[in-house]
Amino acid sequence: MSADEGQRFHAEVARACEEAHRAASFMRSSTPSFRADLLSALANRVADRAGELVAVVADETQLSPGRVESEIGRTTGQLRLLGAHTWDASAFETDPPVVSNGVTQPELQLGSIPLGPVAVFPASNFPMAFGVLGGDTASALAAGCPVVIKPHPAQPATSALLADIVHDVVAAVGCPAGVAAVLEDSSVSAGLALVADSYIKAAGFTGSHHAGRSLFDLAAARVEPIPVYAEMGSVNPVLVTRAATAERLGSIAEELAASIEGSAGQFCTKPGVVVVSSAHAEQFTAALVGAMAGASQPMLTSQMAENFEETAREAAELDAVIVELPPQRDGRCVTPAVLRTSLDQLQHAVVRAENFGPSAVLIEADQADWPQVLDMLGGQLTITIHGQPSDIETLRPTMFDVAQYAGRVIWNGVPTGVRVSPAQQHGGPYPATTASWSTSVGVHAIDRWLRPVAWQSLPGGLLSSADPAAS
Amino acid sequence: MSADEGQRFHAEVARACEEAHRAASFMRSSTPSFRADLLSALANRVADRAGELVAVVADETQLSPGRVESEIGRTTGQLRLLGAHTWDASAFETDPPVVSNGVTQPELQLGSIPLGPVAVFPASNFPMAFGVLGGDTASALAAGCPVVIKPHPAQPATSALLADIVHDVVAAVGCPAGVAAVLEDSSVSAGLALVADSYIKAAGFTGSHHAGRSLFDLAAARVEPIPVYAEMGSVNPVLVTRAATAERLGSIAEELAASIEGSAGQFCTKPGVVVVSSAHAEQFTAALVGAMAGASQPMLTSQMAENFEETAREAAELDAVIVELPPQRDGRCVTPAVLRTSLDQLQHAVVRAENFGPSAVLIEADQADWPQVLDMLGGQLTITIHGQPSDIETLRPTMFDVAQYAGRVIWNGVPTGVRVSPAQQHGGPYPATTASWSTSVGVHAIDRWLRPVAWQSLPGGLLSSADPAAS
Repeated sequence: MSADEGQRFHAEVARACEEAHRAASFMRSSTPSFRADLLSALANRVADRAGELVAVVADETQLSPGRVESEIGRTTGQLRLLGAHTWDASAFETDPPVVSNGVTQPELQLGSIPLGPVAVFPASNFPMAFGVLGGDTASALAAGCPVVIKPHPAQPATSALLADIVHDVVAAVGCPAGVAAVLEDSSVSAGLALVADSYIKAAGFTGSHHAGRSLFDLAAARVEPIPVYAEMGSVNPVLVTRAATAERLGSIAEELAASIEGSAGQFCTKPGVVVVSSAHAEQFTAALVGAMAGASQPMLTSQMAENFEETAREAAELDAVIVELPPQRDGRCVTPAVLRTSLDQLQHAVVRAENFGPSAVLIEADQADWPQVLDMLGGQLTITIHGQPSDIETLRPTMFDVAQYAGRVIWNGVPTGVRVSPAQQHGGPYPATTASWSTSVGVHAIDRWLRPVAWQSLPGGLLSSADPAAS
Repeated sequence: MSADEGQRFHAEVARACEEAHRAASFMRSSTPSFRADLLSALANRVADRAGELVAVVADETQLSPGRVESEIGRTTGQLRLLGAHTWDASAFETDPPVVSNGVTQPELQLGSIPLGPVAVFPASNFPMAFGVLGGDTASALAAGCPVVIKPHPAQPATSALLADIVHDVVAAVGCPAGVAAVLEDSSVSAGLALVADSYIKAAGFTGSHHAGRSLFDLAAARVEPIPVYAEMGSVNPVLVTRAATAERLGSIAEELAASIEGSAGQFCTKPGVVVVSSAHAEQFTAALVGAMAGASQPMLTSQMAENFEETAREAAELDAVIVELPPQRDGRCVTPAVLRTSLDQLQHAVVRAENFGPSAVLIEADQADWPQVLDMLGGQLTITIHGQPSDIETLRPTMFDVAQYAGRVIWNGVPTGVRVSPAQQHGGPYPATTASWSTSVGVHAIDRWLRPVAWQSLPGGLLSSADPAAS
């Protein structure tokens, strides 16, 4: 997928990007309350049509209606939370004028400004919360950026229903259509044309490493490079101290089992690697396997189920890998897999790579080997440590070295269940994301679509903006 | 300059990066006061050796001793200011745990962590403030990141003296040598090897578009891409309203003349394009040319003087371009140039591109044409507006559209003279920089070398770090 391929003319994409470009000026001059109202109207419409959404999404994704319902709640909550933190053009930091050594240093007011049209690539594993009206769209609109959304090709019915909602609400609140467009073409080439379009100023993506890196490469090769905020998954290592295994082996195994097999393991924060001292490894594995429900669950697509089984099978073929729980596949449905091996087997990509689905690899390694394990695994969304109060003294000097590999560090918990809140950081060093300094969940997700502007010696009254809804 | 070329083995670079990698852990666990002391010790040593520095720098750069002296003041001030805002690992935002719908949402504490070793590419036009101990080095050390500095090849004597200071101070305060290294090899290939080295996690650069873009491209093509904060210059348009010309033509011309020819125009914020209504263009140009001292000044290198004359000559050859003040060159010395033309001539790259040196292009265009002018000029470090109180009403609805093209917007001033302070934003949309969301001057320059980390459910006492200087 080269820049040239992406730069092919694509009529629908070109039209949508031009409309988004025209809408960018409207959004820049809209008031924070106008944008909050837009996000709130989107949340209301999603809530109004929740019944319909549950039916369509559950049917298309095979996620349980209960899970879809709770995701709808998360999505409307997210739209409202981000709407409450929408871009405010006023300065957040001011340096008053000063005279120093006879030279007057001018007043500076530091504010921010939206980047312009944003390309959004929804994920399939959260059809609502990371979907057409998910976090990327909500945060970009909150930042005052128009969005052009390329739907996930695996979910045409869900996307069409959400596109309908977007279209209705944008018109109802009095926005130009270019403020939020959902493309009809969900193909790879439409996505490449979108990121290559010179009117697009940034992109948000959640999905596979291959697709995310392709978009990143294309964006970097543009005449005007743009940032691609791609979240590409992680194995979310869980490190268990000897003291923790000795005290809480059973409860840790139970929590982890639920986190590994919930929603068929289709979470970017699924714990995929668990590190336990060799002294307890056998006992811990038995507890983990025992704690699993082990039921067959449908995955989002048949292709994903095939990939899952294939990756687990490939790893299992290595001599030093013990299969504790072999996965079974029946079409789109799979059962969980648990493998166990030693630290040195992490040299094999298939052992250390994310296997999207309900599986985990247990690594036998002592605490002294954690730095080596983390270094072999590379950048992560999360790292979890299970420890006891007696471990704190030993762990303290290592915590920043641990944190260098992840965006979120968890003590005595599980990585799944990402809180949508101001202090959330859902990101991490490459290859977890392409932009470790950003988050795709929480209030700071808005920051990705803004950049700072310093206003020097500006007179009062020059920056106040009119409410376009009131005009 | 492909990734392959850069990835050639380079012994000195490889050794420096490995030492920086080892020093990264030391820096991550150092205390804020230790880093503040390091920066302050660097500032003190620079101040102690100011006499020597003035002589060496003035001789090598041909900048006046007074200018070098004031830059040394700026550099020591910058080291101290950034040292006072050094990275603090403690959380700056906290979400307390809450129970909602029967589910406990865990506590999150949002803090930050240094990226790791930073490659620094000093600029030649500020041999001190953007030099070996300039803003990139100071901000990276303040962020807790080791630096590997590739000196500017045009300033070997200045670089050697500063390297000596770095070496002495790093040893004196008890840092491992890898905390700050200055390469002996200042070649292009050393720079490419540096950015390609897998231990390097980010780069700071100030200089030409060609070199900045090469580093950006190389960094984006790495197996693990890294951010390159490249500041690559700008024409810093100055827009003058009719009312301002009518009221203050003489004083605006005087201020601008000084800003254009000061330090031989070798500032990235030099106003290179001035937009004046055609009604006043002739009178304004006469005033501007009249206000210039017009003296011959040495440039930083002979090559720069040649490029300056060549670019001005090429633009002057266009039919519709009037030469109001022709540049003269004698070896490394040049006199200022002023050209005048119409808006449509901006179609020629040579008219709209930065000409590094004491020159400006006057564009005849009315206020209604400003959007077109700005769009043709593209991303800028600064945009300056000269206006009267009577202009505010008309300008207000356009201010965010103006700001979309620049990192700093100035009212009734000149773009040169960049204040080093908390609310400064020295950056801007591509091609002014490769990362419009960052600043290379001021306190927020530190942010470039940090990324957020969310600590989930962390017990007290796990994060406190020891002072390595005290151990």
